[in-house]
Amino acid sequence: MMQFRLAGTGGQGQILAAIILAEAAVASDQLYAAQSQSYGPESRGGASRAEVVISESPIDYPKVDKPDFLLCMSQQGFDKYQDDVAEDGTILVDTSLVTVPETHRHSRVVGCKITETARKNLGRQVVANIIALGLLVRLTEVVSPEAAKKAIANRVPSGTESLNLQAFDLGFELDPSLDCFGLDRSF
Amino acid sequence: MMQFRLAGTGGQGQILAAIILAEAAVASDQLYAAQSQSYGPESRGGASRAEVVISESPIDYPKVDKPDFLLCMSQQGFDKYQDDVAEDGTILVDTSLVTVPETHRHSRVVGCKITETARKNLGRQVVANIIALGLLVRLTEVVSPEAAKKAIANRVPSGTESLNLQAFDLGFELDPSLDCFGLDRSF
Repeated sequence: MMQFRLAGTGGQGQILAAIILAEAAVASDQLYAAQSQSYGPESRGGASRAEVVISESPIDYPKVDKPDFLLCMSQQGFDKYQDDVAEDGTILVDTSLVTVPETHRHSRVVGCKITETARKNLGRQVVANIIALGLLVRLTEVVSPEAAKKAIANRVPSGTESLNLQAFDLGFELDPSLDCFGLDRSF
Repeated sequence: MMQFRLAGTGGQGQILAAIILAEAAVASDQLYAAQSQSYGPESRGGASRAEVVISESPIDYPKVDKPDFLLCMSQQGFDKYQDDVAEDGTILVDTSLVTVPETHRHSRVVGCKITETARKNLGRQVVANIIALGLLVRLTEVVSPEAAKKAIANRVPSGTESLNLQAFDLGFELDPSLDCFGLDRSF
């Protein structure tokens, strides 16, 4: 069983990335998945949080309490959720948007300029979520890149398939020397 | 607290309709919401199920067990879930796709040719999910039509806003005499 939390702000596409991850797990990798989001006063303030549970057996409880993987695409998301992560979990931080104090750069934190990479390399900030998904798949190996790409092609808006597949590859193959820290560690 | 289950087959947009419902509840109507989907062997067979819980207070458990409202856009969805519905709940059936035996046409069942209406009136079967959402909002009054339309405009693919808003209005204002049964009852 593996728990994922994708945190950021509205409009970054965390829900879409979470749905793609869940669908990739089930459609091609023969797993069970549950995907959810909760909305409240926070989301009225712009905060967004999508969650996925992936398991080899049926899932009773779809809620994530101790994520094995946390994506932070907002400072608020990092500040609020970093302590929830499981002991051997991984925190992926978009350092275009989030400052990680030196003291917090422990072995479980990977930082990459995800949004900046989307803008610079693909000219479209909106695919930062799919670059992040590529990184997530590389770091966790929870689904195969092929399964993820099939789910992406099924789910993204018609006409943007090629851009999003490029974004996934870019995230999956990001160079640790390229505005990243922690990416060259083994997990 | 109100629980919704939207059942159908992949590609009908149940997840999108559920996300829109949840976002409408929170963004404009000051409620809490949780939205989820579970995937397993069923979804590999094409079945799709999206759920929403809406409440005036924070929601601990995002899973739906006894829906107050069930949308059935597949025969399998109707056959499988009709008995789960709360005693005073409502079942909305797309009678373009689902056959409701006479004996099951009790006071809680509303049937409308949703998909056929989408095709005939708007030329696009793909917006059947939003017509269904219009019906859902009319029947349950869980959010205002204005809140729903704001959430639709925020969430549907860019360029399809107008078509989807038309679909919502069409569902909200469906004439009971128009290939529908049960729609003129008060709930």
